Amino acid sequence: MHVTGVIVEYNPMHNGHLYHVEQSRLQTGADAVVAVMSGHFLQRGEPAIVNKWARARMALQQGVDLVVELPVAYSTQSAMLFAYGSVAVLDRLGAVDSLCFGSESGDIKSLQTLSSIIVDEPPLLQSYIQLELQKGVSYPRATGAALVRYAEQDPHLDERVVGQPNNMLGLEYLAALRRLNSSITPATITRIAAGYNEERITHPKIASATAIRKATLESGVETAAPLLPELSYSILREEFAAGRGPMRWENYRQTLFTLLHRATPEQLARFVGVDEGLEARLIEAARRVDTVQDLIAHAKTKRFTWTKIQRALTSILLGVTREEQASLLVENGPDYIRVLGFTERGRDVLRRASERSVVPILTKMPRQQSPMLQLDLRASRIYSQGYTVPQSGAALWDFTTPVIRL
Amino acid sequence: MHVTGVIVEYNPMHNGHLYHVEQSRLQTGADAVVAVMSGHFLQRGEPAIVNKWARARMALQQGVDLVVELPVAYSTQSAMLFAYGSVAVLDRLGAVDSLCFGSESGDIKSLQTLSSIIVDEPPLLQSYIQLELQKGVSYPRATGAALVRYAEQDPHLDERVVGQPNNMLGLEYLAALRRLNSSITPATITRIAAGYNEERITHPKIASATAIRKATLESGVETAAPLLPELSYSILREEFAAGRGPMRWENYRQTLFTLLHRATPEQLARFVGVDEGLEARLIEAARRVDTVQDLIAHAKTKRFTWTKIQRALTSILLGVTREEQASLLVENGPDYIRVLGFTERGRDVLRRASERSVVPILTKMPRQQSPMLQLDLRASRIYSQGYTVPQSGAALWDFTTPVIRL
Repeated sequence: MHVTGVIVEYNPMHNGHLYHVEQSRLQTGADAVVAVMSGHFLQRGEPAIVNKWARARMALQQGVDLVVELPVAYSTQSAMLFAYGSVAVLDRLGAVDSLCFGSESGDIKSLQTLSSIIVDEPPLLQSYIQLELQKGVSYPRATGAALVRYAEQDPHLDERVVGQPNNMLGLEYLAALRRLNSSITPATITRIAAGYNEERITHPKIASATAIRKATLESGVETAAPLLPELSYSILREEFAAGRGPMRWENYRQTLFTLLHRATPEQLARFVGVDEGLEARLIEAARRVDTVQDLIAHAKTKRFTWTKIQRALTSILLGVTREEQASLLVENGPDYIRVLGFTERGRDVLRRASERSVVPILTKMPRQQSPMLQLDLRASRIYSQGYTVPQSGAALWDFTTPVIRL
Repeated sequence: MHVTGVIVEYNPMHNGHLYHVEQSRLQTGADAVVAVMSGHFLQRGEPAIVNKWARARMALQQGVDLVVELPVAYSTQSAMLFAYGSVAVLDRLGAVDSLCFGSESGDIKSLQTLSSIIVDEPPLLQSYIQLELQKGVSYPRATGAALVRYAEQDPHLDERVVGQPNNMLGLEYLAALRRLNSSITPATITRIAAGYNEERITHPKIASATAIRKATLESGVETAAPLLPELSYSILREEFAAGRGPMRWENYRQTLFTLLHRATPEQLARFVGVDEGLEARLIEAARRVDTVQDLIAHAKTKRFTWTKIQRALTSILLGVTREEQASLLVENGPDYIRVLGFTERGRDVLRRASERSVVPILTKMPRQQSPMLQLDLRASRIYSQGYTVPQSGAALWDFTTPVIRL
């Protein structure tokens, strides 16, 4: 049995994702696909449009055999930590043979060469990064720009690969595999039709999740119907109809503004990602504007990018202090693997994993939870406060929702 | 010029309050009435039904000549601290000759005798209090019961006075006057028709504020029309129509639940009034129920009364830690007097006060704010997050709203 892994957010799962699952299976000759999926808060610092159980059902009905959850300790972090956590979950599961990710490049060799440079970080690259940082841009942007300069000077490297968002994330996956000394074989699929961040819909059946969320919010979920597999669409509709979405930052407006109204800059700077004066900017912005969108726009600068601000807001909302973050020991990798759901074939993967996994595989909530798992539970409780119709018992869904079996 | 002071919440101002203002003027022969009024959060640990500017307008249109704000450092505290802060504001204003409060008793002499016992706290009373506390009741309740026992044994004291809520608050006002060595002369008016906490409406034109709020919430503001002075009623209607009320705990549901979902018991116990295991009860309750009403009902015990829990929730919402509370130095009295509004005659009182007041009298917001004043501003910002329709600029209303001049 060959098992391939994919790293996903499915926010929501759309036709492009379906294509990626099918291609991953074909290209790697896999018998089963495992997805490590972010829970309720995502990499760009946003709440997921619908909850993780709804998104796991989408995945299982669309060809994924096993969905495991990426702990929030990784899911809302920089690309490097996000990639490290995701790859570590697949690696620790002990049942995954290959990792298949989408990229603009589609050339695994050139990506691997570039990735090894990121991991080794030669002195020349380091000095380029420092130069970029002095311009006042964010660290990820500085690294990207430095890597382009570095690649331009090396005939064996293709600088055009750098800077494209899926390539960059892919480089981080490859770096994580290397750091973990993993036996998982990487593979990549050329992404089709829609860019990662593309906001407009240009292809009749394929659009980015960003464009789909935008269309959903602005013109109703019906607009997104052609872009989603039928079952994704019906799950999305059901969730919305029940008052469990669409979830977005504005749903947390009251709490977020109160937290900003309530804190001193010093108190706010205790949260992860709130630094370098962002604390004062956020507090000031909260007094001037009325929506989270406007808050971010008001606080934004070249250095404080939209994503950095959203991630900071996430750690404020969830109450993740630097002290707690340090106590999570993210550098050691996740200390559990939480199963959200599986198919018949997924059960075989789980059986294989149960013999080989180096961390507990959770199909129900244990009595004792590690700090990392407690943070996931907290994130779920807080996420549930954004439902437009209060959901009875939602604060305990992590305990009461059974693993999905398809 | 004789100036009399009244201590009020006006939540909302009703016919009973109007009667109290008129009687205060008559009984003391006053030329002007000054009200010290709680701001956005009240003594029983609740948000005010409409904001302080709306309630100040009600007062000024109904015979009050000057409305000054009781700092939130006092307005949400135990009867003793509430009374101390209120009386201290009137005393420090330097322009108030008498204090006129409603009571069930109506007999200022017997109230004064009892009050001196509260202040002096003879050993016998102390031992009674200790005995009552051992039964597991709250401190105010223990003091009340101990005072009854004490009065029963002294032929000069009337034990029937004790235990009635307005008498008890009156005793605290008298005790505060004594502690402040104030030259203000106390006077009392027998309350008519409706009890302080009476939930039902029994008199055609007089009902308690509690009953009026209940009727308003359950059957619409129209039900309360006969019980309110015409101008109070129209202000209430306007505020509600603009999405600025009715304000109640449920309006802060999301934030409050998130704060409870987010904190460890240790973190929660840092807030004023959250102690003796209440922290764990609140966290547990938040996971079980969906409304603030149910949360309080779930956490309630003999010791943790409804009021104690609401006050604890207020300090959690506003983020008032024990450390901050200690830094406010409430025992020194308020360090400013904030004017909300005045009439022509109130302007004369202010003129007199400006010559005699021992603390700054604020008719606009100063650049530098003391910690106590900063807490008022924070309370206002947070209060504004409960409006049902977001109000543009509301976070800065303490700076932008002019003093009301009638």
